[in-house]
Amino acid sequence: MTNNRIKELVALKDKAKARRETATYMVEGIKMCGEAPADKVLETYVTQGFKKQHEQWLKDRDYEVVDDKVFNRISDTMTPQGVLSVLKQPQFSLDDLIKSEAGLYMILEDIQDPGNLGTIIRTAEGAGVTAVIMSRGCVDIYNPKTIRSTMGSVYRVPFVYVDDLAYVTSKMKENGITIYAAHLKGKRLYDEVNYKKTAFLIGNEGNGLKDETAALADEYIKIPMAGKVESLNAAVAASILMYEYGRSMRC
Amino acid sequence: MTNNRIKELVALKDKAKARRETATYMVEGIKMCGEAPADKVLETYVTQGFKKQHEQWLKDRDYEVVDDKVFNRISDTMTPQGVLSVLKQPQFSLDDLIKSEAGLYMILEDIQDPGNLGTIIRTAEGAGVTAVIMSRGCVDIYNPKTIRSTMGSVYRVPFVYVDDLAYVTSKMKENGITIYAAHLKGKRLYDEVNYKKTAFLIGNEGNGLKDETAALADEYIKIPMAGKVESLNAAVAASILMYEYGRSMRC
Repeated sequence: MTNNRIKELVALKDKAKARRETATYMVEGIKMCGEAPADKVLETYVTQGFKKQHEQWLKDRDYEVVDDKVFNRISDTMTPQGVLSVLKQPQFSLDDLIKSEAGLYMILEDIQDPGNLGTIIRTAEGAGVTAVIMSRGCVDIYNPKTIRSTMGSVYRVPFVYVDDLAYVTSKMKENGITIYAAHLKGKRLYDEVNYKKTAFLIGNEGNGLKDETAALADEYIKIPMAGKVESLNAAVAASILMYEYGRSMRC
Repeated sequence: MTNNRIKELVALKDKAKARRETATYMVEGIKMCGEAPADKVLETYVTQGFKKQHEQWLKDRDYEVVDDKVFNRISDTMTPQGVLSVLKQPQFSLDDLIKSEAGLYMILEDIQDPGNLGTIIRTAEGAGVTAVIMSRGCVDIYNPKTIRSTMGSVYRVPFVYVDDLAYVTSKMKENGITIYAAHLKGKRLYDEVNYKKTAFLIGNEGNGLKDETAALADEYIKIPMAGKVESLNAAVAASILMYEYGRSMRC
Protein backbone atom coordinates (compact mmCIF):
# COMPACT_ATOMS: atom_id res chain seq x y z
CA MET A 1 0.00 0.00 0.00
CA THR A 2 1.32 3.45 -0.84
CA ASN A 3 2.06 5.90 1.93
CA ASN A 4 -0.48 8.20 0.41
CA ARG A 5 -3.26 5.61 0.59
CA ILE A 6 -2.35 4.87 4.21
CA LYS A 7 -2.76 8.56 5.00
CA GLU A 8 -6.12 8.65 3.25
CA LEU A 9 -7.34 5.66 5.25
CA VAL A 10 -6.16 7.17 8.54
CA ALA A 11 -8.07 10.33 7.63
CA LEU A 12 -11.14 8.24 6.86
CA LYS A 13 -10.96 6.79 10.35
CA ASP A 14 -10.25 10.04 12.19
CA LYS A 15 -11.94 12.82 10.25
CA ALA A 16 -15.61 13.35 9.45
CA LYS A 17 -14.49 15.80 6.76
CA ALA A 18 -12.51 13.13 4.90
CA ARG A 19 -15.51 10.80 5.05
CA ARG A 20 -17.84 13.51 3.80
CA GLU A 21 -15.60 14.55 0.94
CA THR A 22 -15.13 11.00 -0.33
CA ALA A 23 -18.66 9.85 0.58
CA THR A 24 -17.09 6.73 2.05
CA TYR A 25 -16.47 5.31 5.52
CA MET A 26 -14.65 2.49 7.22
CA VAL A 27 -15.89 -0.48 9.23
CA GLU A 28 -13.84 -2.99 11.21
CA GLY A 29 -14.11 -6.53 12.46
CA ILE A 30 -15.59 -9.68 11.05
CA LYS A 31 -19.16 -8.92 12.13
CA MET A 32 -19.29 -5.42 10.65
CA CYS A 33 -17.40 -6.39 7.48
CA GLY A 34 -19.46 -9.56 7.14
CA GLU A 35 -22.81 -7.77 7.36
CA ALA A 36 -21.79 -4.93 5.03
CA PRO A 37 -24.05 -4.70 1.94
CA ALA A 38 -21.97 -6.24 -0.87
CA ASP A 39 -22.84 -3.49 -3.34
CA LYS A 40 -21.40 -0.86 -1.01
CA VAL A 41 -18.03 -2.47 -0.28
CA LEU A 42 -15.20 -0.74 -2.14
CA GLU A 43 -12.13 -2.28 -0.54
CA THR A 44 -11.26 -4.79 2.16
CA TYR A 45 -7.92 -5.00 3.95
CA VAL A 46 -6.77 -7.94 6.04
CA THR A 47 -3.66 -8.93 7.96
CA GLN A 48 -1.71 -12.06 7.13
CA GLY A 49 -2.88 -13.57 10.41
CA PHE A 50 -6.54 -12.91 9.60
CA LYS A 51 -6.10 -14.41 6.14
CA LYS A 52 -4.74 -17.66 7.54
CA GLN A 53 -7.59 -18.04 9.98
CA HIS A 54 -10.47 -17.03 7.71
CA GLU A 55 -9.80 -18.50 4.28
CA GLN A 56 -13.38 -19.67 3.88
CA TRP A 57 -14.79 -16.27 4.80
CA LEU A 58 -12.46 -14.55 2.31
CA LYS A 59 -13.11 -16.99 -0.54
CA ASP A 60 -15.65 -14.91 -2.45
CA ARG A 61 -14.31 -11.51 -1.50
CA ASP A 62 -11.80 -9.13 -3.00
CA TYR A 63 -9.21 -8.08 -0.48
CA GLU A 64 -5.69 -6.85 -0.04
CA VAL A 65 -3.26 -8.19 2.54
CA VAL A 66 -1.37 -5.51 4.45
CA ASP A 67 1.29 -5.97 7.07
CA ASP A 68 0.44 -5.66 10.77
CA LYS A 69 2.17 -2.33 11.23
CA VAL A 70 0.14 -0.72 8.47
CA PHE A 71 -3.06 -2.34 9.69
CA ASN A 72 -2.55 -1.02 13.20
CA ARG A 73 -2.16 2.48 11.82
CA ILE A 74 -5.42 2.44 9.89
CA SER A 75 -7.35 0.49 12.55
CA ASP A 76 -9.39 2.29 15.21
CA THR A 77 -9.18 -0.47 17.82
CA MET A 78 -6.54 -1.38 20.36
CA THR A 79 -6.60 -5.08 19.47
CA PRO A 80 -7.67 -5.20 15.82
CA GLN A 81 -9.32 -8.34 14.46
CA GLY A 82 -7.33 -7.87 11.27
CA VAL A 83 -10.10 -7.02 8.83
CA LEU A 84 -11.57 -3.72 7.72
CA SER A 85 -13.57 -2.47 4.75
CA VAL A 86 -14.09 0.85 3.05
CA LEU A 87 -17.74 1.38 2.11
CA LYS A 88 -19.71 3.78 -0.03
CA GLN A 89 -22.08 5.91 2.05
CA PRO A 90 -25.76 5.28 1.32
CA GLN A 91 -27.85 8.25 0.19
CA PHE A 92 -31.40 8.64 1.39
CA SER A 93 -33.75 11.42 0.39
CA LEU A 94 -35.79 13.05 3.11
CA ASP A 95 -38.83 13.20 0.87
CA ASP A 96 -38.72 9.47 0.15
CA LEU A 97 -38.25 8.63 3.81
CA ILE A 98 -41.28 10.52 5.05
CA LYS A 99 -43.61 9.31 2.31
CA SER A 100 -43.84 5.95 4.07
CA GLU A 101 -47.32 4.78 5.01
CA ALA A 102 -46.29 3.23 8.28
CA GLY A 103 -44.32 5.59 10.35
CA LEU A 104 -42.23 6.02 13.39
CA TYR A 105 -39.51 8.65 13.04
CA MET A 106 -36.79 9.81 15.38
CA ILE A 107 -35.61 13.39 14.96
CA LEU A 108 -32.32 13.95 16.77
CA GLU A 109 -30.99 17.39 17.56
CA ASP A 110 -27.25 17.79 18.17
CA ILE A 111 -26.60 14.38 19.75
CA GLN A 112 -22.91 14.61 20.62
CA ASP A 113 -21.88 11.26 22.05
CA PRO A 114 -20.94 8.69 19.37
CA GLY A 115 -22.04 5.83 21.64
CA ASN A 116 -25.42 7.43 22.26
CA LEU A 117 -26.04 7.90 18.55
CA GLY A 118 -25.00 4.35 17.76
CA THR A 119 -27.22 2.99 20.52
CA ILE A 120 -30.19 4.98 19.20
CA ILE A 121 -29.64 3.56 15.71
CA ARG A 122 -29.39 0.02 17.11
CA THR A 123 -32.57 0.38 19.19
CA ALA A 124 -34.30 2.07 16.25
CA GLU A 125 -33.84 -1.04 14.14
CA GLY A 126 -35.10 -3.21 17.00
CA ALA A 127 -38.15 -1.01 17.46
CA GLY A 128 -38.91 -0.95 13.73
CA VAL A 129 -38.30 2.76 13.23
CA THR A 130 -38.94 3.98 9.68
CA ALA A 131 -36.08 6.48 9.60
CA VAL A 132 -33.80 8.58 11.79
CA ILE A 133 -33.48 12.28 10.94
CA MET A 134 -30.46 14.09 12.37
CA SER A 135 -29.64 17.77 12.67
CA ARG A 136 -26.32 18.74 11.10
CA GLY A 137 -25.02 19.30 14.64
CA CYS A 138 -25.24 15.59 15.50
CA VAL A 139 -21.99 13.64 15.70
CA ASP A 140 -21.02 11.89 12.46
CA ILE A 141 -22.84 8.57 12.16
CA TYR A 142 -19.71 7.19 10.42
CA ASN A 143 -17.54 7.90 13.45
CA PRO A 144 -15.91 4.52 14.22
CA LYS A 145 -17.35 4.50 17.76
CA THR A 146 -20.84 5.18 16.47
CA ILE A 147 -20.49 2.48 13.83
CA ARG A 148 -19.42 -0.03 16.49
CA SER A 149 -22.29 0.87 18.82
CA THR A 150 -24.85 0.34 16.07
CA MET A 151 -23.86 -3.36 15.95
CA GLY A 152 -24.66 -3.38 12.25
CA SER A 153 -27.93 -1.47 12.40
CA VAL A 154 -26.25 1.39 10.53
CA TYR A 155 -26.63 -0.77 7.40
CA ARG A 156 -30.35 -1.24 7.89
CA VAL A 157 -31.85 1.91 9.40
CA PRO A 158 -32.49 4.67 6.85
CA PHE A 159 -31.16 8.03 8.04
CA VAL A 160 -30.48 11.50 6.78
CA TYR A 161 -28.76 14.66 8.02
CA VAL A 162 -30.66 17.87 7.53
CA ASP A 163 -29.88 21.56 7.86
CA ASP A 164 -33.30 22.67 8.89
CA LEU A 165 -35.46 20.75 11.35
CA ALA A 166 -38.34 23.17 10.81
CA TYR A 167 -38.50 22.13 7.16
CA VAL A 168 -38.54 18.46 8.23
CA THR A 169 -41.37 18.86 10.69
CA SER A 170 -43.46 20.93 8.28
CA LYS A 171 -43.02 18.24 5.60
CA MET A 172 -43.93 15.60 8.16
CA LYS A 173 -47.07 17.41 9.21
CA GLU A 174 -48.12 17.58 5.55
CA ASN A 175 -47.74 13.80 5.53
CA GLY A 176 -49.95 13.34 8.58
CA ILE A 177 -47.15 12.69 11.03
CA THR A 178 -47.60 14.06 14.56
CA ILE A 179 -44.50 15.44 16.24
CA TYR A 180 -43.91 14.81 19.95
CA ALA A 181 -41.13 16.28 22.04
CA ALA A 182 -40.06 14.65 25.28
CA HIS A 183 -40.11 17.66 27.55
CA LEU A 184 -40.36 18.45 31.25
CA LYS A 185 -43.28 20.75 30.47
CA GLY A 186 -45.29 17.91 28.96
CA LYS A 187 -48.82 17.56 30.36
CA ARG A 188 -49.56 14.04 29.19
CA LEU A 189 -47.23 11.18 30.02
CA TYR A 190 -45.56 9.45 27.10
CA ASP A 191 -47.69 6.36 27.74
CA GLU A 192 -51.04 8.16 27.63
CA VAL A 193 -50.91 9.00 23.94
CA ASN A 194 -52.78 7.14 21.23
CA TYR A 195 -49.93 7.16 18.72
CA LYS A 196 -50.57 7.18 14.97
CA LYS A 197 -47.88 8.24 12.49
CA THR A 198 -45.33 9.64 14.90
CA ALA A 199 -42.05 11.49 15.15
CA PHE A 200 -40.21 11.93 18.44
CA LEU A 201 -37.87 14.89 18.90
CA ILE A 202 -34.81 14.06 21.01
CA GLY A 203 -32.47 16.80 22.21
CA ASN A 204 -28.80 17.17 22.98
CA GLU A 205 -27.37 15.30 25.99
CA GLY A 206 -26.48 18.32 28.05
CA ASN A 207 -29.02 20.91 27.01
CA GLY A 208 -32.08 19.05 25.78
CA LEU A 209 -34.01 20.48 22.85
CA LYS A 210 -33.47 24.09 21.83
CA ASP A 211 -36.60 26.15 22.56
CA GLU A 212 -37.19 26.82 18.87
CA THR A 213 -36.93 23.10 18.11
CA ALA A 214 -39.24 22.07 20.95
CA ALA A 215 -41.71 24.62 19.54
CA LEU A 216 -41.93 22.54 16.34
CA ALA A 217 -43.70 19.78 18.27
CA ASP A 218 -47.46 19.28 18.12
CA GLU A 219 -47.34 18.17 21.75
CA TYR A 220 -44.93 17.93 24.64
CA ILE A 221 -44.97 14.60 26.41
CA LYS A 222 -43.37 13.72 29.70
CA ILE A 223 -41.35 10.73 30.80
CA PRO A 224 -41.94 10.65 34.56
CA MET A 225 -38.82 10.71 36.71
CA ALA A 226 -38.64 9.81 40.38
CA GLY A 227 -36.02 10.99 42.86
CA LYS A 228 -33.84 13.92 41.90
CA VAL A 229 -33.31 12.88 38.29
CA GLU A 230 -33.48 15.89 36.01
CA SER A 231 -33.20 14.03 32.73
CA LEU A 232 -32.50 10.61 31.30
CA ASN A 233 -29.61 9.67 29.05
CA ALA A 234 -30.61 10.65 25.49
CA ALA A 235 -30.38 7.09 24.15
CA VAL A 236 -32.42 5.79 27.08
CA ALA A 237 -35.14 8.40 26.62
CA ALA A 238 -35.26 7.67 22.88
CA SER A 239 -35.45 3.93 23.53
CA ILE A 240 -38.26 4.21 26.05
CA LEU A 241 -40.29 6.25 23.55
CA MET A 242 -39.59 3.98 20.58
CA TYR A 243 -40.60 0.90 22.52
CA GLU A 244 -43.69 2.55 23.99
CA TYR A 245 -44.79 3.33 20.44
CA GLY A 246 -44.42 -0.35 19.56
CA ARG A 247 -46.19 -1.48 22.71
CA SER A 248 -49.13 0.82 22.07
CA MET A 249 -49.37 -0.52 18.48
CA ARG A 250 -49.67 -4.08 19.86
CA CYS A 251 -52.57 -3.16 22.16
CA MET B 1 0.16 17.73 49.63
CA THR B 2 2.72 15.00 50.22
CA ASN B 3 3.90 12.93 47.31
CA ASN B 4 2.56 9.89 49.08
CA ARG B 5 -0.94 11.32 49.34
CA ILE B 6 -0.86 12.27 45.66
CA LYS B 7 -0.03 8.66 44.83
CA GLU B 8 -2.88 7.41 47.00
CA LEU B 9 -5.34 9.73 45.27
CA VAL B 10 -4.15 8.68 41.80
CA ALA B 11 -4.67 5.07 42.87
CA LEU B 12 -8.16 5.94 44.11
CA LYS B 13 -8.97 7.29 40.67
CA ASP B 14 -7.39 4.47 38.66
CA LYS B 15 -7.72 1.30 40.74
CA ALA B 16 -10.82 -0.47 42.00
CA LYS B 17 -8.56 -2.31 44.45
CA ALA B 18 -7.41 0.93 46.10
CA ARG B 19 -11.04 2.03 46.40
CA ARG B 20 -12.07 -1.31 47.90
CA GLU B 21 -9.24 -1.40 50.40
CA THR B 22 -9.91 2.10 51.68
CA ALA B 23 -13.70 1.89 51.28
CA THR B 24 -13.56 5.34 49.71
CA TYR B 25 -13.94 6.81 46.23
CA MET B 26 -13.51 10.06 44.38
CA VAL B 27 -15.96 12.34 42.62
CA GLU B 28 -15.24 15.38 40.47
CA GLY B 29 -16.88 18.56 39.37
CA ILE B 30 -19.20 21.02 41.05
CA LYS B 31 -22.37 19.01 40.42
CA MET B 32 -21.06 15.72 41.82
CA CYS B 33 -19.23 17.37 44.73
CA GLY B 34 -22.21 19.61 45.43
CA GLU B 35 -24.71 16.75 45.59
CA ALA B 36 -22.46 14.50 47.70
CA PRO B 37 -24.04 13.56 51.04
CA ALA B 38 -22.28 15.81 53.60
CA ASP B 39 -21.78 12.97 56.09
CA LYS B 40 -19.83 10.96 53.51
CA VAL B 41 -17.37 13.65 52.39
CA LEU B 42 -13.90 13.07 53.81
CA GLU B 43 -11.81 15.56 51.86
CA THR B 44 -12.26 18.16 49.14
CA TYR B 45 -9.48 19.50 46.93
CA VAL B 46 -9.73 22.61 44.80
CA THR B 47 -7.47 24.61 42.54
CA GLN B 48 -6.67 28.25 43.19
CA GLY B 49 -8.72 29.15 40.13
CA PHE B 50 -11.76 27.28 41.40
CA LYS B 51 -11.43 28.89 44.81
CA LYS B 52 -11.51 32.39 43.34
CA GLN B 53 -14.61 31.67 41.29
CA HIS B 54 -16.61 29.76 43.91
CA GLU B 55 -16.05 31.46 47.25
CA GLN B 56 -19.71 31.28 48.17
CA TRP B 57 -19.96 27.60 47.35
CA LEU B 58 -16.85 26.86 49.46
CA LYS B 59 -17.91 28.98 52.42
CA ASP B 60 -19.26 26.17 54.60
CA ARG B 61 -16.96 23.45 53.39
CA ASP B 62 -13.60 22.13 54.47
CA TYR B 63 -11.17 22.01 51.59
CA GLU B 64 -7.54 22.11 50.66
CA VAL B 65 -6.11 24.17 47.81
CA VAL B 66 -3.68 22.27 45.59
CA ASP B 67 -1.73 23.61 42.67
CA ASP B 68 -2.90 22.96 39.11
CA LYS B 69 -0.16 20.46 38.33
CA VAL B 70 -1.11 18.27 41.29
CA PHE B 71 -4.80 18.64 40.55
CA ASN B 72 -4.33 17.53 36.95
CA ARG B 73 -2.54 14.41 38.16
CA ILE B 74 -5.33 13.33 40.50
CA SER B 75 -8.16 14.41 38.19
CA ASP B 76 -9.78 11.94 35.77
CA THR B 77 -10.90 14.54 33.24
CA MET B 78 -9.12 16.29 30.40
CA THR B 79 -10.37 19.74 31.38
CA PRO B 80 -10.91 19.56 35.15
CA GLN B 81 -13.36 21.94 36.81
CA GLY B 82 -10.93 22.26 39.70
CA VAL B 83 -12.87 20.53 42.47
CA LEU B 84 -12.92 16.93 43.66
CA SER B 85 -13.92 15.13 46.82
CA VAL B 86 -13.00 11.87 48.48
CA LEU B 87 -16.05 10.10 49.88
CA LYS B 88 -16.76 7.19 52.19
CA GLN B 89 -18.45 4.32 50.39
CA PRO B 90 -21.99 3.62 51.62
CA GLN B 91 -22.71 0.14 52.93
CA PHE B 92 -26.03 -1.52 52.19
CA SER B 93 -27.09 -4.91 53.45
CA LEU B 94 -28.75 -7.22 50.98
CA ASP B 95 -31.23 -8.40 53.60
CA ASP B 96 -32.34 -4.86 54.39
CA LEU B 97 -32.68 -3.98 50.72
CA ILE B 98 -34.99 -6.85 49.84
CA LYS B 99 -37.22 -6.47 52.87
CA SER B 100 -38.86 -3.47 51.25
CA GLU B 101 -42.62 -3.63 50.81
CA ALA B 102 -42.63 -1.88 47.47
CA GLY B 103 -40.28 -3.42 45.12
CA LEU B 104 -38.56 -3.18 41.82
CA TYR B 105 -35.08 -4.65 41.74
CA MET B 106 -32.46 -4.82 39.03
CA ILE B 107 -30.03 -7.74 39.20
CA LEU B 108 -27.04 -7.13 36.95
CA GLU B 109 -24.70 -9.88 35.89
CA ASP B 110 -21.18 -8.94 34.80
CA ILE B 111 -21.99 -5.57 33.24
CA GLN B 112 -18.62 -4.49 31.88
CA ASP B 113 -19.03 -1.04 30.43
CA PRO B 114 -18.72 1.77 33.01
CA GLY B 115 -21.05 4.00 30.98
CA ASN B 116 -23.70 1.30 30.77
CA LEU B 117 -23.61 0.71 34.52
CA GLY B 118 -23.80 4.42 35.26
CA THR B 119 -26.70 4.84 32.85
CA ILE B 120 -28.58 1.96 34.49
CA ILE B 121 -28.11 3.56 37.93
CA ARG B 122 -29.33 6.92 36.58
CA THR B 123 -32.41 5.41 34.95
CA ALA B 124 -33.02 3.28 38.05
CA GLU B 125 -33.43 6.39 40.16
CA GLY B 126 -35.74 7.90 37.55
CA ALA B 127 -37.85 4.75 37.44
CA GLY B 128 -38.03 4.51 41.23
CA VAL B 129 -36.07 1.27 41.54
CA THR B 130 -35.76 -0.01 45.12
CA ALA B 131 -32.23 -1.34 44.74
CA VAL B 132 -29.65 -2.54 42.23
CA ILE B 133 -27.93 -5.85 42.93
CA MET B 134 -24.68 -6.51 41.05
CA SER B 135 -22.66 -9.65 40.57
CA ARG B 136 -19.03 -9.35 41.65
CA GLY B 137 -18.13 -9.51 37.95
CA CYS B 138 -19.73 -6.13 37.24
CA VAL B 139 -17.45 -3.16 36.65
CA ASP B 140 -16.73 -1.10 39.79
CA ILE B 141 -19.56 1.36 40.41
CA TYR B 142 -16.93 3.80 41.75
CA ASN B 143 -15.07 3.85 38.45
CA PRO B 144 -14.87 7.57 37.56
CA LYS B 145 -16.67 6.98 34.24
CA THR B 146 -19.50 5.15 35.97
CA ILE B 147 -19.78 7.87 38.60
CA ARG B 148 -20.03 10.52 35.90
CA SER B 149 -22.68 8.61 33.93
CA THR B 150 -24.88 8.26 37.03
CA MET B 151 -25.25 12.08 37.08
CA GLY B 152 -25.50 11.91 40.88
CA SER B 153 -27.88 8.94 41.10
CA VAL B 154 -25.06 6.90 42.66
CA TYR B 155 -25.77 8.85 45.87
CA ARG B 156 -29.44 7.96 45.89
CA VAL B 157 -29.91 4.46 44.49
CA PRO B 158 -29.17 1.70 47.04
CA PHE B 159 -26.91 -0.99 45.62
CA VAL B 160 -24.87 -3.97 46.68
CA TYR B 161 -22.33 -6.31 45.10
CA VAL B 162 -22.88 -10.00 45.78
CA ASP B 163 -20.87 -13.18 45.25
CA ASP B 164 -23.80 -15.47 44.66
CA LEU B 165 -26.80 -14.48 42.55
CA ALA B 166 -28.54 -17.76 43.41
CA TYR B 167 -28.57 -16.76 47.07
CA VAL B 168 -30.04 -13.38 46.13
CA THR B 169 -32.85 -14.81 44.05
CA SER B 170 -33.74 -17.44 46.66
CA LYS B 171 -33.93 -14.72 49.33
CA MET B 172 -36.04 -12.63 46.99
CA LYS B 173 -38.44 -15.45 46.30
CA GLU B 174 -38.89 -15.90 50.07
CA ASN B 175 -39.88 -12.23 50.13
CA GLY B 176 -42.49 -12.65 47.43
CA ILE B 177 -40.44 -11.10 44.63
CA THR B 178 -40.86 -12.62 41.17
CA ILE B 179 -37.70 -12.87 39.06
CA TYR B 180 -37.89 -12.13 35.33
CA ALA B 181 -35.07 -12.58 32.85
CA ALA B 182 -35.07 -10.74 29.54
CA HIS B 183 -34.35 -13.64 27.22
CA LEU B 184 -34.79 -14.54 23.56
CA LYS B 185 -36.58 -17.72 24.65
CA GLY B 186 -39.26 -15.75 26.50
CA LYS B 187 -42.85 -16.70 25.58
CA ARG B 188 -44.60 -13.65 26.92
CA LEU B 189 -43.57 -10.18 25.88
CA TYR B 190 -42.26 -7.89 28.59
CA ASP B 191 -45.42 -5.78 28.32
CA GLU B 192 -47.85 -8.66 28.81
CA VAL B 193 -46.95 -9.30 32.45
CA ASN B 194 -48.98 -8.16 35.43
CA TYR B 195 -46.00 -7.12 37.53
CA LYS B 196 -46.09 -7.27 41.34
CA LYS B 197 -42.89 -7.22 43.41
CA THR B 198 -40.37 -7.70 40.64
CA ALA B 199 -36.71 -8.26 39.92
CA PHE B 200 -35.28 -8.09 36.40
CA LEU B 201 -32.13 -10.04 35.56
CA ILE B 202 -29.86 -8.22 33.08
CA GLY B 203 -26.90 -9.98 31.50
CA ASN B 204 -23.47 -9.04 30.25
CA GLU B 205 -23.21 -6.85 27.14
CA GLY B 206 -21.57 -9.41 24.91
CA ASN B 207 -22.87 -12.70 26.20
CA GLY B 208 -26.20 -12.01 27.86
CA LEU B 209 -27.09 -14.00 30.98
CA LYS B 210 -25.17 -17.13 31.82
CA ASP B 211 -27.42 -20.19 31.47
CA GLU B 212 -27.24 -20.93 35.18
CA THR B 213 -28.22 -17.34 35.99
CA ALA B 214 -31.10 -17.28 33.51
CA ALA B 215 -32.29 -20.51 35.17
CA LEU B 216 -32.82 -18.59 38.43
CA ALA B 217 -35.69 -16.67 36.82
CA ASP B 218 -39.32 -17.53 37.47
CA GLU B 219 -40.08 -16.54 33.90
CA TYR B 220 -38.32 -15.51 30.73
CA ILE B 221 -39.79 -12.47 29.08
CA LYS B 222 -39.06 -11.15 25.63
CA ILE B 223 -38.39 -7.67 24.34
CA PRO B 224 -39.47 -7.90 20.70
CA MET B 225 -36.84 -6.91 18.15
CA ALA B 226 -37.47 -6.09 14.51
CA GLY B 227 -34.97 -6.34 11.69
CA LYS B 228 -31.78 -8.26 12.28
CA VAL B 229 -31.17 -7.00 15.80
CA GLU B 230 -29.95 -9.82 18.03
CA SER B 231 -29.91 -7.90 21.27
CA LEU B 232 -30.31 -4.42 22.67
CA ASN B 233 -27.68 -2.47 24.54
CA ALA B 234 -27.78 -3.64 28.18
CA ALA B 235 -28.65 -0.21 29.57
CA VAL B 236 -31.39 0.20 26.96
CA ALA B 237 -32.93 -3.20 27.73
CA ALA B 238 -32.79 -2.47 31.47
CA SER B 239 -34.38 0.95 30.94
CA ILE B 240 -37.23 -0.37 28.80
CA LEU B 241 -38.06 -2.94 31.49
CA MET B 242 -37.82 -0.49 34.41
CA TYR B 243 -40.10 1.98 32.68
CA GLU B 244 -42.57 -0.70 31.59
CA TYR B 245 -42.83 -1.73 35.24
CA GLY B 246 -43.69 1.84 36.15
CA ARG B 247 -46.13 2.20 33.28
CA SER B 248 -47.96 -0.98 34.25
CA MET B 249 -48.19 0.26 37.86
CA ARG B 250 -49.90 3.45 36.62
CA CYS B 251 -52.55 1.53 34.69
